[in-house]
Amino acid sequence: MAPAFPFSAIAGQDEMKLAMTIAAVDSSIGGVLVFGDRGTGKSTVVRALAGLLPSIRAAECPYHCNPDKEDDLCEHCAERRAQGKSLKVRRIDVPVVDLPLGVTEDRVVGALDLERALTDGEKAFEPGLLARANRGFLYIDEVNLLEDHIVDLLLDVAASGENVVEREGLSVRHPAKFVLIGSGNPEEGELRPQLLDRFGLSVEVSTPEDLHTRMQVIRRRDDYESDPAAFVERWKRKDGQVRRQIERAREHLPQVEVSDAMLERTSQLCMALGTDGLRGELTLIRAARAAAALDQADAVDVSHLRRVASVALRHRLRRDPLDESGSTTRVQRAVEEHLPA
Amino acid sequence: MAPAFPFSAIAGQDEMKLAMTIAAVDSSIGGVLVFGDRGTGKSTVVRALAGLLPSIRAAECPYHCNPDKEDDLCEHCAERRAQGKSLKVRRIDVPVVDLPLGVTEDRVVGALDLERALTDGEKAFEPGLLARANRGFLYIDEVNLLEDHIVDLLLDVAASGENVVEREGLSVRHPAKFVLIGSGNPEEGELRPQLLDRFGLSVEVSTPEDLHTRMQVIRRRDDYESDPAAFVERWKRKDGQVRRQIERAREHLPQVEVSDAMLERTSQLCMALGTDGLRGELTLIRAARAAAALDQADAVDVSHLRRVASVALRHRLRRDPLDESGSTTRVQRAVEEHLPA
Amino acid sequence: MAPAFPFSAIAGQDEMKLAMTIAAVDSSIGGVLVFGDRGTGKSTVVRALAGLLPSIRAAECPYHCNPDKEDDLCEHCAERRAQGKSLKVRRIDVPVVDLPLGVTEDRVVGALDLERALTDGEKAFEPGLLARANRGFLYIDEVNLLEDHIVDLLLDVAASGENVVEREGLSVRHPAKFVLIGSGNPEEGELRPQLLDRFGLSVEVSTPEDLHTRMQVIRRRDDYESDPAAFVERWKRKDGQVRRQIERAREHLPQVEVSDAMLERTSQLCMALGTDGLRGELTLIRAARAAAALDQADAVDVSHLRRVASVALRHRLRRDPLDESGSTTRVQRAVEEHLPA
Amino acid sequence: MAPAFPFSAIAGQDEMKLAMTIAAVDSSIGGVLVFGDRGTGKSTVVRALAGLLPSIRAAECPYHCNPDKEDDLCEHCAERRAQGKSLKVRRIDVPVVDLPLGVTEDRVVGALDLERALTDGEKAFEPGLLARANRGFLYIDEVNLLEDHIVDLLLDVAASGENVVEREGLSVRHPAKFVLIGSGNPEEGELRPQLLDRFGLSVEVSTPEDLHTRMQVIRRRDDYESDPAAFVERWKRKDGQVRRQIERAREHLPQVEVSDAMLERTSQLCMALGTDGLRGELTLIRAARAAAALDQADAVDVSHLRRVASVALRHRLRRDPLDESGSTTRVQRAVEEHLPA
Amino acid sequence: MAPAFPFSAIAGQDEMKLAMTIAAVDSSIGGVLVFGDRGTGKSTVVRALAGLLPSIRAAECPYHCNPDKEDDLCEHCAERRAQGKSLKVRRIDVPVVDLPLGVTEDRVVGALDLERALTDGEKAFEPGLLARANRGFLYIDEVNLLEDHIVDLLLDVAASGENVVEREGLSVRHPAKFVLIGSGNPEEGELRPQLLDRFGLSVEVSTPEDLHTRMQVIRRRDDYESDPAAFVERWKRKDGQVRRQIERAREHLPQVEVSDAMLERTSQLCMALGTDGLRGELTLIRAARAAAALDQADAVDVSHLRRVASVALRHRLRRDPLDESGSTTRVQRAVEEHLPA
Amino acid sequence: MAPAFPFSAIAGQDEMKLAMTIAAVDSSIGGVLVFGDRGTGKSTVVRALAGLLPSIRAAECPYHCNPDKEDDLCEHCAERRAQGKSLKVRRIDVPVVDLPLGVTEDRVVGALDLERALTDGEKAFEPGLLARANRGFLYIDEVNLLEDHIVDLLLDVAASGENVVEREGLSVRHPAKFVLIGSGNPEEGELRPQLLDRFGLSVEVSTPEDLHTRMQVIRRRDDYESDPAAFVERWKRKDGQVRRQIERAREHLPQVEVSDAMLERTSQLCMALGTDGLRGELTLIRAARAAAALDQADAVDVSHLRRVASVALRHRLRRDPLDESGSTTRVQRAVEEHLPA
Repeated sequence: MAPAFPFSAIAGQDEMKLAMTIAAVDSSIGGVLVFGDRGTGKSTVVRALAGLLPSIRAAECPYHCNPDKEDDLCEHCAERRAQGKSLKVRRIDVPVVDLPLGVTEDRVVGALDLERALTDGEKAFEPGLLARANRGFLYIDEVNLLEDHIVDLLLDVAASGENVVEREGLSVRHPAKFVLIGSGNPEEGELRPQLLDRFGLSVEVSTPEDLHTRMQVIRRRDDYESDPAAFVERWKRKDGQVRRQIERAREHLPQVEVSDAMLERTSQLCMALGTDGLRGELTLIRAARAAAALDQADAVDVSHLRRVASVALRHRLRRDPLDESGSTTRVQRAVEEHLPA
Repeated sequence: MAPAFPFSAIAGQDEMKLAMTIAAVDSSIGGVLVFGDRGTGKSTVVRALAGLLPSIRAAECPYHCNPDKEDDLCEHCAERRAQGKSLKVRRIDVPVVDLPLGVTEDRVVGALDLERALTDGEKAFEPGLLARANRGFLYIDEVNLLEDHIVDLLLDVAASGENVVEREGLSVRHPAKFVLIGSGNPEEGELRPQLLDRFGLSVEVSTPEDLHTRMQVIRRRDDYESDPAAFVERWKRKDGQVRRQIERAREHLPQVEVSDAMLERTSQLCMALGTDGLRGELTLIRAARAAAALDQADAVDVSHLRRVASVALRHRLRRDPLDESGSTTRVQRAVEEHLPA
Repeated sequence: MAPAFPFSAIAGQDEMKLAMTIAAVDSSIGGVLVFGDRGTGKSTVVRALAGLLPSIRAAECPYHCNPDKEDDLCEHCAERRAQGKSLKVRRIDVPVVDLPLGVTEDRVVGALDLERALTDGEKAFEPGLLARANRGFLYIDEVNLLEDHIVDLLLDVAASGENVVEREGLSVRHPAKFVLIGSGNPEEGELRPQLLDRFGLSVEVSTPEDLHTRMQVIRRRDDYESDPAAFVERWKRKDGQVRRQIERAREHLPQVEVSDAMLERTSQLCMALGTDGLRGELTLIRAARAAAALDQADAVDVSHLRRVASVALRHRLRRDPLDESGSTTRVQRAVEEHLPA
Repeated sequence: MAPAFPFSAIAGQDEMKLAMTIAAVDSSIGGVLVFGDRGTGKSTVVRALAGLLPSIRAAECPYHCNPDKEDDLCEHCAERRAQGKSLKVRRIDVPVVDLPLGVTEDRVVGALDLERALTDGEKAFEPGLLARANRGFLYIDEVNLLEDHIVDLLLDVAASGENVVEREGLSVRHPAKFVLIGSGNPEEGELRPQLLDRFGLSVEVSTPEDLHTRMQVIRRRDDYESDPAAFVERWKRKDGQVRRQIERAREHLPQVEVSDAMLERTSQLCMALGTDGLRGELTLIRAARAAAALDQADAVDVSHLRRVASVALRHRLRRDPLDESGSTTRVQRAVEEHLPA
Repeated sequence: MAPAFPFSAIAGQDEMKLAMTIAAVDSSIGGVLVFGDRGTGKSTVVRALAGLLPSIRAAECPYHCNPDKEDDLCEHCAERRAQGKSLKVRRIDVPVVDLPLGVTEDRVVGALDLERALTDGEKAFEPGLLARANRGFLYIDEVNLLEDHIVDLLLDVAASGENVVEREGLSVRHPAKFVLIGSGNPEEGELRPQLLDRFGLSVEVSTPEDLHTRMQVIRRRDDYESDPAAFVERWKRKDGQVRRQIERAREHLPQVEVSDAMLERTSQLCMALGTDGLRGELTLIRAARAAAALDQADAVDVSHLRRVASVALRHRLRRDPLDESGSTTRVQRAVEEHLPA
Repeated sequence: MAPAFPFSAIAGQDEMKLAMTIAAVDSSIGGVLVFGDRGTGKSTVVRALAGLLPSIRAAECPYHCNPDKEDDLCEHCAERRAQGKSLKVRRIDVPVVDLPLGVTEDRVVGALDLERALTDGEKAFEPGLLARANRGFLYIDEVNLLEDHIVDLLLDVAASGENVVEREGLSVRHPAKFVLIGSGNPEEGELRPQLLDRFGLSVEVSTPEDLHTRMQVIRRRDDYESDPAAFVERWKRKDGQVRRQIERAREHLPQVEVSDAMLERTSQLCMALGTDGLRGELTLIRAARAAAALDQADAVDVSHLRRVASVALRHRLRRDPLDESGSTTRVQRAVEEHLPA
């Protein structure tokens, strides 16, 4: 397999890159929904970001557990530890798992291992895609065409960080912490609002409109396809800078404060926009905290809120029959009023 | 898994908390239906209430039978007792079982244990979610999207307190006493009136509209997610007060009287509202009795009826083409007329 | 399980009780169809009637055969008898079997016993719900939502008193005499006229409209639920009177005569009403004979015909586009004209 | 099982009885389709006719082969004969097989015997309903609700007198000569014209309109149900007369001539009526020949054609938008013109 | 089984007989589609033609290979030959296989032999209907009701003369040269144009309109059914003449020339008619060559083209909104203009 | 099997032949979509092209790996090499795999080998159609009738050159480099734009309109069918020329340059046409490079862009409600303006 296209070589697409970077800093933000035109490199960005992140230390189990986090070990690894045995550790790339359309629930959550059931008469668990996605990214192309109950299930697991399987006499529970990336073309069907709201961030992408960017994209893509290894080598240094920024932000994140004043402005903004429920406010606060961490700032300020308001709120607006502006415009107008720069 | 969000730290949502508390006092009231906006913490309340209740003594069987109630033992435990053997007892948390959308009847009621059927040629029962929910809560998110026959089945079992399985040559009967909590968004589909009526209580929830409450919710949630253990510790004392109130009410419940006068006013109220059938009246009486028990009152009075009228009757009204007011308003108007304070 | 609610403690619902009693006297009348509002205690009446009937002597076979009726023995019992062996006999309650919505044909009629097929390579029959209902009641809630072919099958068996299974190499025939009770809410769907006509009697029930009855129902129900055993004890004597009346009527039934005059008035009534086919006339005659037997009368007279005309004919009327009156009104008008008191 | 209702005790329904009798005389006529009201005793007639026919000599094989007709033996019986062995012969009633709605093709045509496949690893044939119907009647209630491909299959076998099974590695061919009786209510759905045309005869039945006949039907039915054995005994002699008439007609049938003149009038009648295809003419000729045989006449004359024209042609008329008369009226009008008495 | 109705005894239906004869001469012409009224003897013609053809020499394999054509041997027969062994040869009738509606793909193409898979653990091929049809006729009644993908599959195999099975680990390839005959009633649904075009020839049949032909058809049919053997004997000589004509035409076919002039007129005719694609032209040329061969002519001339134009082109016309004439009329008009006699 | 029709004997159809040739030169171009009339020889072209290409050296594995490309070996072959063993090599024809309509995902991607699972209890992989298509062509007739998720899957594999199977406990990855050819009739249904865009090139074909070409097509086809071997021999030299042109172009391809000026004109053209995303530009550049390689040119010039603009862009245009011209016309107009000759 060819190496991934370099993250920093992606021309344009700033909002998508921001959302992905925030999700890389705080993976519990609830996933990213990317809606937009065909051929705008949605899946490229996911693979590029994963390719840029440092390899991870992983136990030799189906969940590639993090040997440095006691609480996130699977039952098998935890048992070994409890017995005083050490875990075999190797380094692996950050996993990126593609969820095919038409996937069955069995393949997603895992299922009874029929081979062992038939040969050994033993009820063993055969891990699914959620196991493979642990500690990485789960990418769903055309999420709007996926069956609702699968999307629901994915959002549940993404929210809890744990996959609980109770079926066919199996009772398995394993870590499944991943960033869920869903992409789709709004012309081909919409997500239920119920599901929209459960995604942390959302991004709108479109084909670049200026000649220069287009040529840049084509040229880089053509160069990459002609000789992937050489192309990746050329962008290695820039990708390293991004990686280090993310690593530093992850460490700094717990120290970032949110003042009552910032919280009040957040709530005012959301009330003005009439977002349903309170997930919008909570996500906006947390995305702003990640943005601050990327800046190595000690507290969230208005600039951080402004930067992430669109990606955190855009998909949580009710349709307003009196206002035909798009969601992005409505968020931006409310930001100018309630969060002036 | 992180500890549940504290029940007493839930800001606002008084009606939902009242209905849940009544169901905790009289678990035979017929479950609670929660309809309302996304992101209003419907599932949080269930988990919070279960987390607050005292752990229970349970036999080591798949139904975690109550060793102190002869009549509620499963066949296996009852047999041990009958043979003069003692039951192994442990303490467990009050169970909360989530019913996933798309769940099959097999997973709900239990089924033939295929492994043992294949390996030992033995017809053993593999308990389902109803077994696991015994003595606790069964939570159905988006109950309006669940297949009718499953909802029906759940209501049947919830009403009888017993799960009877007759299939594939199995003939099993086990205790299944639980409080059924169904939540849903009315914009996404309605329940058949036939099913609506079989739920004991119903609650309407919405996003808080005042700035203060919103900020409170967000701040508490953010604090909880930053450090769950510390947050739960801070609210421990308040949750203890609620627990003790519920425990006292449970003991007091059988002593609460309902006078003929109160019964007459109940019937008048229901006739005025034109509720179908008589389940409304019966539930209203019983919910008022639980409310009185929470007050440690010896008899139901008008204040108790007023307090629970909406949650007991709202979902049992026929649509009235001449009256476009919502159900809640119609119940409240009738209450003011027939049950003045 | 709590004892059934006493039949005689049921307040109001006279027509439903009449129809049930007639079916208890002549179980070959073709079942009872109960249509009406939710919460009017349809299933309560069935259980109450069964609870009131005397326990029956039953052979220890899956069909609890009547050891006193040579012709109704199953193949197994008949063979024992033929070999000069005696049958083991016990006393059992009159069975009441609930037919769950979504039930499969296999569960209804019985099927190949897969366990024995797999383990012993033997083709054994696993009796279904029809076996269990033999000599009792088969209750279908929401019969209008059941699949037509199942209803058809049930009506066939109810009519012949025998369940014939021919499938998967099985060839089984066993007694299945039961009273079929179907209930439903006409707002949720109608039965095909073809099926309607095959039910013997039909009843319309509704929520009581007078305050006194409502309070009576609620009070009795609440009392019953507070302490079932004590409540049942209080009504024991009255239930005994009803039981004895039914037992005497069953014995007297073959002696009741139907004169040509009565038969002529019956046919005139049905022709005036334009009932399809002749099942209406036949059922009316037989229901009137059961009513006469309950009175210990030696012949059917006009009063008996009048009493049962509605329950025997109401569901057999064609819709008349020029007459918007309900079926009950149309039957009553024709009765006043052709069967004046 | 009670004995069948006597054929000669059926009051009215002359056309249905004529069609059934003709089919009993010439079983290759292609079956009878009975359309009409509920409760008019359609299935009673079939059972009554079968009950009246003399018992038949049958080999002890699943097809109860006719030991007196070399050409109609099954493979097994033919082989025994070829080996010079004699067939075990017994006397059995003329079979009447009911085809349940929702029946699977497997049950109809027969299928692999799974038990023997699993236990002996042997591919054996498990005969289906067609095997059982050989030499008798196959009755389909509500044929218009049966799946088309099953009806098609039944008509194919009825036409060829042979059931050919080629599936799952089985290759079986067995005699399946039966009279197909389909009944239905035209209000509940129609048969495809393609299928209509393949039935030999068709009959329309309705509830009797005169008081006397109705009373007669009810009285006889009520008498029969009170004491089936006694009732059957009373009608024994009359049924015997009908049986002998049918037996004599079967023997005489091959001698009945059809002159060119009669054939010409038949074709003229059908052309005038515009029946599709030529099956109408062929069936009319053959039904008239059977009618002549019942009369012991040596040749078909106009009276025979007149008698059977309606039952042979009625279901083969195209809808005529300019003529709103029913099919029966149109056939009768054409008969009066082309076949005056 | 009775012998087939003689081909030469079929009264009228000249176009159908022509098309069948051409397909018998050049079996690679692509099958015949017969559309028309019920009861016009469509299946009779197929069976009659097959019955008339000389029996064929066949190897004893499931495909009854032609031992005289090296290239058409199945793998098994080819292997025997390669090993220098001789093939067991017998004479068989030309096969006629009926494709039942609702047939599965497995039954058509053949499938894994489950018995041998289960007993011997061996992956053997169980030949399907295509195997049985090799060297004969495959008849589909109501082809317009068959699933498109089966029709597609049949046309593919008919075109290639080979059945290639690749499934369940099987990889089988066997000869499947047959003439595909599809019949249908256009009132009951149409074939997709895509499928229509893939049939070689098409025929429209209708009930004869003149009295004489009708009487002739009925009389012959009635005679045949009274005594099939005697009837067939009477027509033996005439059938022999047809058989010899076909045999001679088959031998002569490769010698028939098509001049450029004839080809040009063919193309002009098709362009004038606006037939889609070029299959029409190709089929017209080949059908004309077969017609010439039947005449023992050395070259195709206008009379041959005229004779087959309708059967080759009729089903390939696009609907023309400005021309409401039927397809046959449009072909005939174009023939008169471009191919005057 | 007869040899394929010669590529160079195909009359007309220049655009289709151009697109196929380009795909043969650069197989990573993303497949070819052929839309157009029936009977225009779409599948003929694919087979003809494959028949013309030189046979390939292939390892004896299910994927017929290229023994000369280390990176494209399957796991099995790679392992042999790693162990220092040599691969058995044979020469095979370029594979052409037909994808039947209604194909299952299992047959496409491969599946668990059930035989070995059942007999050896071993989880082996049974390769599917993608394995067979490696290094060749995968042809889908009526791609617009294929299920979207299969088309999606095929496009994914075609894009990555690798088939990754993760199911039923299998984890297999094998080379699957092929040119995907989809054909369809736009009158029978359209592809989703999402899928359209993922095909590299698209072609529109139609029945030739001039007499000469039609006659040429018919004559050649008729000659070919009369004696395939002789016909192919006649065209051998011309096919050899085409083969050598393709071989030389493949070698030259990496040397062809694309200047910034050409890239700019490409982007301008696509912006003017408003193609969604950037796949159009990328494909146009690469198709032009292949066209230049066929010319043995060292750089792409305007003539190459002009030659391939229609096949690269036509299927990527949005419907423009103000411009009713077909896609081809719109591309040609834009080419004349932005890429004047």
